[in-house]
Amino acid sequence: MNEVPPYSASSVEVVRLPQGETEPDEIAVEEPLEIRVEGRPIAVTMRTPGHDEELAIGFLRSEGIAAVSAGPTADFAANVIDVEVEDGVDFERLSRNFYTSSSCGVCGKGALEAVAVEAPPVESELIVPAVLVAVLPDRLRDAQPTFAATGGLHATGLFDSGGDLLVVREDVGRHNAMDKVVGWAFDQGLLPLTDKMLCVSGRLSFELVQKAVVAGCPVVVAVGAPSTLAVDLARDRGVTLCGFVRGGRVNVYSEAQRIG
Amino acid sequence: MNEVPPYSASSVEVVRLPQGETEPDEIAVEEPLEIRVEGRPIAVTMRTPGHDEELAIGFLRSEGIAAVSAGPTADFAANVIDVEVEDGVDFERLSRNFYTSSSCGVCGKGALEAVAVEAPPVESELIVPAVLVAVLPDRLRDAQPTFAATGGLHATGLFDSGGDLLVVREDVGRHNAMDKVVGWAFDQGLLPLTDKMLCVSGRLSFELVQKAVVAGCPVVVAVGAPSTLAVDLARDRGVTLCGFVRGGRVNVYSEAQRIG
Repeated sequence: MNEVPPYSASSVEVVRLPQGETEPDEIAVEEPLEIRVEGRPIAVTMRTPGHDEELAIGFLRSEGIAAVSAGPTADFAANVIDVEVEDGVDFERLSRNFYTSSSCGVCGKGALEAVAVEAPPVESELIVPAVLVAVLPDRLRDAQPTFAATGGLHATGLFDSGGDLLVVREDVGRHNAMDKVVGWAFDQGLLPLTDKMLCVSGRLSFELVQKAVVAGCPVVVAVGAPSTLAVDLARDRGVTLCGFVRGGRVNVYSEAQRIG
Repeated sequence: MNEVPPYSASSVEVVRLPQGETEPDEIAVEEPLEIRVEGRPIAVTMRTPGHDEELAIGFLRSEGIAAVSAGPTADFAANVIDVEVEDGVDFERLSRNFYTSSSCGVCGKGALEAVAVEAPPVESELIVPAVLVAVLPDRLRDAQPTFAATGGLHATGLFDSGGDLLVVREDVGRHNAMDKVVGWAFDQGLLPLTDKMLCVSGRLSFELVQKAVVAGCPVVVAVGAPSTLAVDLARDRGVTLCGFVRGGRVNVYSEAQRIG
């Protein structure tokens, strides 16, 4: 029952600062799964591979659809699972209610290729000292207006190259907090964020890195862990990804030359 | 810049165990926001109200859409915002790529009514001692196979009425971890979960409680904080919601009669 799925963690190279050693680090795997009902693509979810049949059935049943059997996923690289349902399915209703990708199925594509929005690589001359990156999470936390009261909000902060906080936004959804910061930056005429840094209060998913890429931000800092797909995207698009930033330590997963 | 939005935290009644006092508790507000482009519903996101214009613009720009101005939201109860874009928009592509709700807009409805899936109230005779609820998060953590290695995975565990762990599933997405558990329970013939408890490693969003309701589970336990809409749904559908379960303490937000 508690077996470790074959594919839930993966090893990546990380530069550990301030020591500067390059070591392997185990991070959680994140990949898209396209859920099909009777052959038709219904939804794409970003998930950790393993137990995909359970995920597909549980997902559909939670939406009130009488899913009865699924898959198995043909192979992990395919990232597609087909589900059988008890009764007929109102595909029209389904296609209105899920995040679907009927136009760009994930089947036969690499994970990055399947889900990435088109955006050019991030170009920036920014160099930031590791000691400055290390203090950003504390500065973010100190500026969170609501977290102290509720303990229930994610935050994203935008910092200038000197580490001064420009804006902080909170939300129950971590992607919303970053969207609010990007929307603020647009309103202020600050896009692209070529000489800025984004810092998030939690973990780094693919989706958050994607938003940073589109906003043109060269350095993304997180208190928590990145996923594999977050690291893949950061390396592909030239973003410096710093994770586990706590207690003076910084793990750099990509483009470490920007951390001086 | 760091002003507290008027609506980001809200006070709810909570029963604090083991002391048993009923007190007000500040929790993060979660409500749906329907994002429209030129009057057409495009997406619904569960968010914390405040800075909605930034959210709508940042969300669309992250998807490569040249949003230029938004809203303001007419009023918080409406939960609808309209966005102007620079160029034309391919609505066909948009409707394929977002979680949309063109069939049931949130405008003019209460938040719960707008987003809740149809499911009957949870009925259960289950009574659980507070001391048992208090140890579930530790049992969940001890059973997480991958978290220790990566620090990057959410988990959901299913427990029987005696507090024995039946299954644990991990995922980068917290909703996926619960979907996997529900899918496992379906496969084992255990649905509805009338005499079971679900325990999650993080915070409690509306979406997680909704999945528990559909699965018929009477007790949901979380290490972290619930949102307002999670509490509203739990109260509406008869689910006992326990949050901030750590260090022997349990905050009960709804249906406290089940915690003996």
